[in-house]
Amino acid sequence: MVILGIDPGSRITGYGIISKQGNRLIHIDNGAIFTQSAKDFPQRLDKIYRGLSDIIAEFRPQAIAVENVFLAKNAQSALKLGQARGAAIVAAVSVGLPVFEYTALQVKQAVVGTGRAEKTQVQQMIKALLNLPEVAQEDASDALAVAVCHAHSANLKAVLGSMFNVQR
Amino acid sequence: MVILGIDPGSRITGYGIISKQGNRLIHIDNGAIFTQSAKDFPQRLDKIYRGLSDIIAEFRPQAIAVENVFLAKNAQSALKLGQARGAAIVAAVSVGLPVFEYTALQVKQAVVGTGRAEKTQVQQMIKALLNLPEVAQEDASDALAVAVCHAHSANLKAVLGSMFNVQR
Repeated sequence: MVILGIDPGSRITGYGIISKQGNRLIHIDNGAIFTQSAKDFPQRLDKIYRGLSDIIAEFRPQAIAVENVFLAKNAQSALKLGQARGAAIVAAVSVGLPVFEYTALQVKQAVVGTGRAEKTQVQQMIKALLNLPEVAQEDASDALAVAVCHAHSANLKAVLGSMFNVQR
Repeated sequence: MVILGIDPGSRITGYGIISKQGNRLIHIDNGAIFTQSAKDFPQRLDKIYRGLSDIIAEFRPQAIAVENVFLAKNAQSALKLGQARGAAIVAAVSVGLPVFEYTALQVKQAVVGTGRAEKTQVQQMIKALLNLPEVAQEDASDALAVAVCHAHSANLKAVLGSMFNVQR
């Protein structure tokens, strides 16, 4: 299963693609979409949407994972982040892909084993887990982290599914 | 020129289509996209994106007008509104349509003539200006209002353009 993790932002949107083969996680690609060159805010959203649409067309993920944001500095930054997130999610749902949302706590627990992990610990762990030559760009690393979180969660759901596999 | 006005919201997204023929404004259609039946938030965004994409394909507007939101009750509602707005704007920019943003003040001034107008005044004025049989649904009326604002603004730009039409 190929999983695309996304860390949306109105200036930088990180992405990370991993493949889950049994219990192994394999790094496929990661990077960031920079929107600062856009002439206005709607064009930034277009860059996010088109950038992710291209990535989805190239890597054909079966699932998209995004971190669920509950907090923002203020309403203005929440509006900007929200619009970036909306553009990112539409790139996935408009081609029929399921979007899974995880809290920052769930991501840290999945990657480091504790919800109290520091950001740098998560980055180091992602580097180690996925055998990256170096720590990935910050937003790309966050995107890989939520993809790893989904991979673990999918594992757990599969185990629980087989444990509680009742006749219907 | 056909103008599509949009009033994005995560539960209800209003839209209004007008045609500007010289100085005359002609009502073409208005309505609202309801997303409450969606099974999760990403599916709501999908409904907004698909609904507006269908409307754009049917009515082929040359411009999209959206009210610019600066204030929101809190960061959480700003995030929801932002995502709806992002999905709506992507429906336009992904097919190459220009998106124009206006503040609530600009919309009220354009429709009623004063930025201190009440919401019901704006609704009544839209009904009168566009010869509607009755006041449109609230979000659809807001969408028509921002479309009218763009039509007036486009007028003004054309006048200014011809006044300052210097040799290049």
